[in-house]
Amino acid sequence: MQGIKRPTLLVNKGKAQANISRMLSKARGHGAVLRPHFKTHQSLELGQWFREAGVDQIAVSSVSMARQFVADGWKDILIAFPVNLREMDEINILAATTRLGLTVSAPGVMALLAKALKAPVELWMKVDVGTHRTGFDPKNPDAIRLALQQAEANSLITMAGVLAHAGHTYHAGTPADILKIHQDSMGLLNGLKASLADAFPGGCKISWGDTPSCSLSENFYGADELRPGNFVYYDLMQHNLGACGPEDIAVAVAAPVVALHPERKEMVIYCGAVHLSKEQGKDAIGNIHYGQVVMLNKSGHWIFPDEACYVNRLSQEHGVIRLPEALCRKFSPGELAGILPVHSCLTADLLRADTRFI
Amino acid sequence: MQGIKRPTLLVNKGKAQANISRMLSKARGHGAVLRPHFKTHQSLELGQWFREAGVDQIAVSSVSMARQFVADGWKDILIAFPVNLREMDEINILAATTRLGLTVSAPGVMALLAKALKAPVELWMKVDVGTHRTGFDPKNPDAIRLALQQAEANSLITMAGVLAHAGHTYHAGTPADILKIHQDSMGLLNGLKASLADAFPGGCKISWGDTPSCSLSENFYGADELRPGNFVYYDLMQHNLGACGPEDIAVAVAAPVVALHPERKEMVIYCGAVHLSKEQGKDAIGNIHYGQVVMLNKSGHWIFPDEACYVNRLSQEHGVIRLPEALCRKFSPGELAGILPVHSCLTADLLRADTRFI
Repeated sequence: MQGIKRPTLLVNKGKAQANISRMLSKARGHGAVLRPHFKTHQSLELGQWFREAGVDQIAVSSVSMARQFVADGWKDILIAFPVNLREMDEINILAATTRLGLTVSAPGVMALLAKALKAPVELWMKVDVGTHRTGFDPKNPDAIRLALQQAEANSLITMAGVLAHAGHTYHAGTPADILKIHQDSMGLLNGLKASLADAFPGGCKISWGDTPSCSLSENFYGADELRPGNFVYYDLMQHNLGACGPEDIAVAVAAPVVALHPERKEMVIYCGAVHLSKEQGKDAIGNIHYGQVVMLNKSGHWIFPDEACYVNRLSQEHGVIRLPEALCRKFSPGELAGILPVHSCLTADLLRADTRFI
Repeated sequence: MQGIKRPTLLVNKGKAQANISRMLSKARGHGAVLRPHFKTHQSLELGQWFREAGVDQIAVSSVSMARQFVADGWKDILIAFPVNLREMDEINILAATTRLGLTVSAPGVMALLAKALKAPVELWMKVDVGTHRTGFDPKNPDAIRLALQQAEANSLITMAGVLAHAGHTYHAGTPADILKIHQDSMGLLNGLKASLADAFPGGCKISWGDTPSCSLSENFYGADELRPGNFVYYDLMQHNLGACGPEDIAVAVAAPVVALHPERKEMVIYCGAVHLSKEQGKDAIGNIHYGQVVMLNKSGHWIFPDEACYVNRLSQEHGVIRLPEALCRKFSPGELAGILPVHSCLTADLLRADTRFI
């Protein structure tokens, strides 16, 4: 790990490409398009790996990200985030040259959007399948019909279909619970598709997201598109949900060791909240942590130590690891420890400028 | 707030300058140097406000930050973070042209540092006054003496003094608890200064940090330097500790409203974990939140709504606010909500590229 001086995201190319390949085969096997969510990696290099695997449609979560990937040659981009009306100028510019998808997730937006839109877009109606973050209530089709009518005011809008992200799979207790959420949600979406058929003259597609269900399900109930994002890297949260094995996690942070306190079984790393994020995980006995320790070899590949140990405390730049005294004595100041992130999307966002591919 | 399109950190210049001026007067009134910690803002503009107020010594928490402020003309910089031996090349370059302070916080580091150092530095011994993050144990002066002996191997090292950061003030229950921690810690540091006098031929200074104690104390017990950082912005965490009033908080995030769900008393903003950070606060009844809602006027100044409401949930880009239905109906999609951050250091780090001074 010559040349690594500061906290650095190590991306294991072999693992990430295996994750891409597995999800792509799965989507194709079910007749669905894989439209991976690029918010997880936000990386042109990763985008290239997807492109080489045969992906040409992507999702992002902001206009800025859309712009970044349009500049890199992507031609079919869905902004899978409620349309931000303050960025209409930027949206109109992007839509003029790109096949651009937008999302409307609540009443009161469509009329304003229809008024401000000056270039063609495909529009997705976001449906709340139980996460209660945002989205139209599937039990209130009148609100959806009103929005669809408002969309007709602007002929540049093509209604594409209904879209959902079952974020509540992240709070599911077991893989079976995740599969149940998936099945129930797809029931809601298929019901809406049938009842709204007349309002989607070009057909109503179903776009389905979230890594836990896409990783675990073997039935996609007629989804036209799958939009998982996290699966390319996975992380401890996904592993705890049963969505991946520990060997599938494709990222670790290389963190310089700056202090050893073997007398109290602690080690301090240069790797804090501004590198890992403060996303909390829980260890086997329920203690909160911010990442799990792995041992890095010279090429940056990692193995788990005999005893699981974690980043137990985090300040802006410091991480404090509790570890067996014998393991603590294996490290020296100036060496690197590896940390598997709790939530790779947030860690990758923080370390965008400090990423290394291995 | 014309021109604000994405989540943006609003820095109230009047409040920040009042915070600077108050802390500077306080330090001077006690015969101490104010060496503000610039990790909070990491901003050249803020640096300029400090410079205009008469500050010329600063602290930072990484070599990268030191480099940024050296490039902006700062000549006396203490890296108040355990020295990262992987950055010795960068440290030697900085030390050749800058009055550079380094920190050693644990046994096993000084001998390696003395070997690698090629330019003059001032060295601070970090002491653990009870936070148990890192630092030498003040009850084990032998370890400190050994490190001081190891420093003698390199004549480029000038021993400056002992340094502490009482991070455990952040877990104190009351302002009185914070003052007790401060007093006890300064007792430890003054005791070490006396017992180690012979090992500091140029005199042993005491450098003291943390915003809660520096804000609340009216006695600094002989500290030569004060190194608070957060005080320039303050935040909800500091307010909860009693270290500032709500009117002293100098930053808010302007967040575009993207969806309204008045039927369930919720509003969704474009402002998530990648903007606010996942630092958790607690409201008056102990519920976790990620920031408090304020109302922004056209120039970006803020007032509190009649009823306190918070960002209750956070995903990568979404924030979900629970608020009274009547308040929800005051917002429209495309307008801005203001959010006071739980921890301004982390929020400011995330929004470095999207900051506006008002």
